Amino acid sequence: MTSVGVVGGGQLGLMLGMAGIPLGVHCSFLEPGDDPPAAAVGPVERASFGDLAALLALAQRSDVLTVELEHVDVDALRWLGEAVRIRPAPAAIAVTQDRLLEKRVLCDAGIATARFAEPDEVPRGFAAGSVVKVRTGGYDGRGQLVVPSGGDVLRAAESLGGPAIAEEVVSFTRELSIVAARSALGEVRCFPVVENRHRDGILRETRAPAPGLTAALQAEAEGFVVALTERLDYVGVIAVELFEVDGHLLANEVAPRVHNSGHWTIDGARTSQFEQHLRAILDLPLGDPSPLGFAGMINLIGHEPPLAELLAVDGARVHRYRKAPRPGRKLGHVTVVAPTEAERDALLARVLHFVDTT
Amino acid sequence: MTSVGVVGGGQLGLMLGMAGIPLGVHCSFLEPGDDPPAAAVGPVERASFGDLAALLALAQRSDVLTVELEHVDVDALRWLGEAVRIRPAPAAIAVTQDRLLEKRVLCDAGIATARFAEPDEVPRGFAAGSVVKVRTGGYDGRGQLVVPSGGDVLRAAESLGGPAIAEEVVSFTRELSIVAARSALGEVRCFPVVENRHRDGILRETRAPAPGLTAALQAEAEGFVVALTERLDYVGVIAVELFEVDGHLLANEVAPRVHNSGHWTIDGARTSQFEQHLRAILDLPLGDPSPLGFAGMINLIGHEPPLAELLAVDGARVHRYRKAPRPGRKLGHVTVVAPTEAERDALLARVLHFVDTT
Repeated sequence: MTSVGVVGGGQLGLMLGMAGIPLGVHCSFLEPGDDPPAAAVGPVERASFGDLAALLALAQRSDVLTVELEHVDVDALRWLGEAVRIRPAPAAIAVTQDRLLEKRVLCDAGIATARFAEPDEVPRGFAAGSVVKVRTGGYDGRGQLVVPSGGDVLRAAESLGGPAIAEEVVSFTRELSIVAARSALGEVRCFPVVENRHRDGILRETRAPAPGLTAALQAEAEGFVVALTERLDYVGVIAVELFEVDGHLLANEVAPRVHNSGHWTIDGARTSQFEQHLRAILDLPLGDPSPLGFAGMINLIGHEPPLAELLAVDGARVHRYRKAPRPGRKLGHVTVVAPTEAERDALLARVLHFVDTT
Repeated sequence: MTSVGVVGGGQLGLMLGMAGIPLGVHCSFLEPGDDPPAAAVGPVERASFGDLAALLALAQRSDVLTVELEHVDVDALRWLGEAVRIRPAPAAIAVTQDRLLEKRVLCDAGIATARFAEPDEVPRGFAAGSVVKVRTGGYDGRGQLVVPSGGDVLRAAESLGGPAIAEEVVSFTRELSIVAARSALGEVRCFPVVENRHRDGILRETRAPAPGLTAALQAEAEGFVVALTERLDYVGVIAVELFEVDGHLLANEVAPRVHNSGHWTIDGARTSQFEQHLRAILDLPLGDPSPLGFAGMINLIGHEPPLAELLAVDGARVHRYRKAPRPGRKLGHVTVVAPTEAERDALLARVLHFVDTT
């Protein structure tokens, strides 16, 4: 029996654990929260992410250690990494924890991004306006402010209460993302680029592949992934959030893990992102990322509709995370897969009828 | 949280438990064996199937009780059924435990079968030869003997050491099966008829849908299911094994549970047979049984090829059961799904290259 230790026990851990079972891969988790989602599929050691003894114990009963979130204690993982295999490497995770460092690495890898700077380099911001973000922490739209052109970037940065980065506001056509995996041998396999819709900074819907996706756009996104993962010597699944601007791409954010915009792959691809991550970190052959049709994914946020209503939609696949409802909290998602885009969109509309989108 | 108690903890229980997790359905198991497959997804009470106290404890923490095998203690379930909901009902399970009773119920429901009789009614057997089988127990080809025309059916029955049934040997074109679900309201939804290949009485391969499946043949099989499940007032997933003879069907055996020939639905249908069973017994809407393409399933029997070899076949989905290898033991299965029959068969051939078929 192969054992994987997962730092974090949320829904991403749950779905990693689910993917492991048919492969004979057993996942254990480390998570400070009580009765987290992943508890349904494996033992959870309740400890903080910086608890060296707990991390060591997890590592000692695992063939490889991985993460299901980027807000981990990288120093602890670095220390641990001297003795055990951690994938992706702590150094790669560290890059994605710091928005400024991440943007610099993207630039160094030749990947297009919005213009960015430290706040004191651009006290009055960029011509098109600025998004000022905390460098570390902050997710789902938290920890950021928009400052209009000529506004006071320094004051915005100060009010966020920590080191910040200023990025130029981008007038994008739409938000996209790519989820991909890289093996230790450097093989990269990419899922198709998907289109994402956010509200209040939280992902609401994903369409896969992105409507109108061209081979050129897919190639551009894959080029980003190859350049970035090579630079980071990355092993595992990675997600890159993208802006489409004038038919080209800018990289926005990187997640060193499986990603919400890849959940559709459980039902809609020949290999799920979760199985793909396990394959990559365990030196198993990477799986076929081909889609099985046109997929759509809708997040259940804040509250869950009655299960029977969702299941009454023929073809809807329901994924609940065992979490108590709370405003803005991701509680589950619903996937649909159809042979045509029109049927996919019709199914999505039927599901949305039951989903609270206020 | 909805709770389902499952009598039996083998691979069928494991896959039921897996299907429950995304729905927020928690499965617990009762199983006499040590560390059974289902232990990966829920608590297992180690007890015999006739242990009334253990059954009662399982029932008391469950919203509904079900079975993942038919060789349960029906008397114990009947006693329990006075107090708790059991689906399918013990009376329906009892019918499938006794080959003679099962055949009589099929006949009474107007469903075609091979000719059959009690051994002393046909001491010299049927004109085409006879298969003499124990009435209860026996599976995967065990507990049966073939007696040529004019042979001694009574002696064959005696040598099997228990009440027996004699069935006429059928020259069938091929073996098929249909898996279907019936709700408490009487709604029936059927997966497509599939083709099965056995060796030594053990299922080796399933092709779904059955090659050349016509609407007429599907309708004939669905007619069998509707007639039988109505007669049994059946709730849950049921499987009927079929012989195709001269373009028509004979019912061979009935399983009151999810079935090996339905495993392809996990990867190849819009709803898996496991989720469908949970939906049926929990009064949730039945799911869409449509196939996602052309699927094939190969059982891993007796030994498992190296995981990396199987995973190197693009599109192969591997399902391992956490069981120690033993000759003739089902250890896992591999599913492939493709947009055409030719591609499906090519993928199957690639998988078979790694599977021991001796």
